Amino acid sequence: MKVLIVYAHPNPQSFNHAILESFTKGLAEAGHTYEVVDLYAIKFNPCLSGEDIGMFMQGKVPDDVRDQQEKVSQANGLVFIHPVWWIGLPAMLKGWFDRVFSMGFAYGYDEKTGDFQGLLKNQKALIINTAAANEEEAKTMGWADVPKKIEGDFMLKFTGIGNVQHVLFFNVIKTDDATRKKYLEKARDLGKTF
Amino acid sequence: MKVLIVYAHPNPQSFNHAILESFTKGLAEAGHTYEVVDLYAIKFNPCLSGEDIGMFMQGKVPDDVRDQQEKVSQANGLVFIHPVWWIGLPAMLKGWFDRVFSMGFAYGYDEKTGDFQGLLKNQKALIINTAAANEEEAKTMGWADVPKKIEGDFMLKFTGIGNVQHVLFFNVIKTDDATRKKYLEKARDLGKTF
Repeated sequence: MKVLIVYAHPNPQSFNHAILESFTKGLAEAGHTYEVVDLYAIKFNPCLSGEDIGMFMQGKVPDDVRDQQEKVSQANGLVFIHPVWWIGLPAMLKGWFDRVFSMGFAYGYDEKTGDFQGLLKNQKALIINTAAANEEEAKTMGWADVPKKIEGDFMLKFTGIGNVQHVLFFNVIKTDDATRKKYLEKARDLGKTF
Repeated sequence: MKVLIVYAHPNPQSFNHAILESFTKGLAEAGHTYEVVDLYAIKFNPCLSGEDIGMFMQGKVPDDVRDQQEKVSQANGLVFIHPVWWIGLPAMLKGWFDRVFSMGFAYGYDEKTGDFQGLLKNQKALIINTAAANEEEAKTMGWADVPKKIEGDFMLKFTGIGNVQHVLFFNVIKTDDATRKKYLEKARDLGKTF
């Protein structure tokens, strides 16, 4: 399988980066090929602009968006690795969705019926998240399942990808090394079994 | 009352901008003073960086973030005007929250009890959203109340602002001029009665 990984964390020393490394190790062990789009490293521009909108309305696509769309189209599977910030996506990744998952590429709209239609042909998607909060805190505050519901069940499934898996590693800052090691093993397994 | 309006839309000719104008007209009529932070116009940097995180950990604050935090602190009320993209915030505004609503400014964390505490003293907040979808579509797809729940009930209330109002104008692209006019009157009323 050819896998596209969209990765959003500003710090190359972060636990998110360790997850990326373990996950790609697992992918390689399973014989998959992969490409990593490290959004901070490539300084992706996350702000959908008036110029972008004007181009989309004329059926055109900005060059940097087209590059990303081609990577998405060529992949069998999509993987998103990022921390949960304010119970949602880092702006860098939210903007990737705002710009790259444009109407006509990720979804269509039927003017006559008023129906939306997912246009992506990827076989599956996986989201791997980290959170500073522990699971009990997140549950008490009522948001433990929000990242799965928004990015997985709504955003990705809206594009037509039926098979969307979501994994959230809690408490990554304060937990012990044994738990972190377990998380990284899980990430490697997710790669192996993707 | 002194009101800070955080506005995020790339197009100065947009309906969102018309809402901003009507709303501020209403504010002025009620004798409120206000400041608009037009995030696209000031080219706000929405990407929380490794340097930002390093500074926050040392109790320091990047200059552009401090500017925004001072505006928040000096306002009695906060208003957010923006479109709903992918049932959430435009990256530009999500990144304003990621960077400006930092720990120690917008919320505190008690290491001993594990409790979070809202730190903002603003009396009230208002979110005015637009969506291209109509209300029936949004309800059928199950996300009609998501912008209110995420940005209002979770994000803003997490900072300690108890009084958070949310208004969502649906179908702004395809609706008729009479409805758009009604929306703008409502925006002006929201300013008058803020």
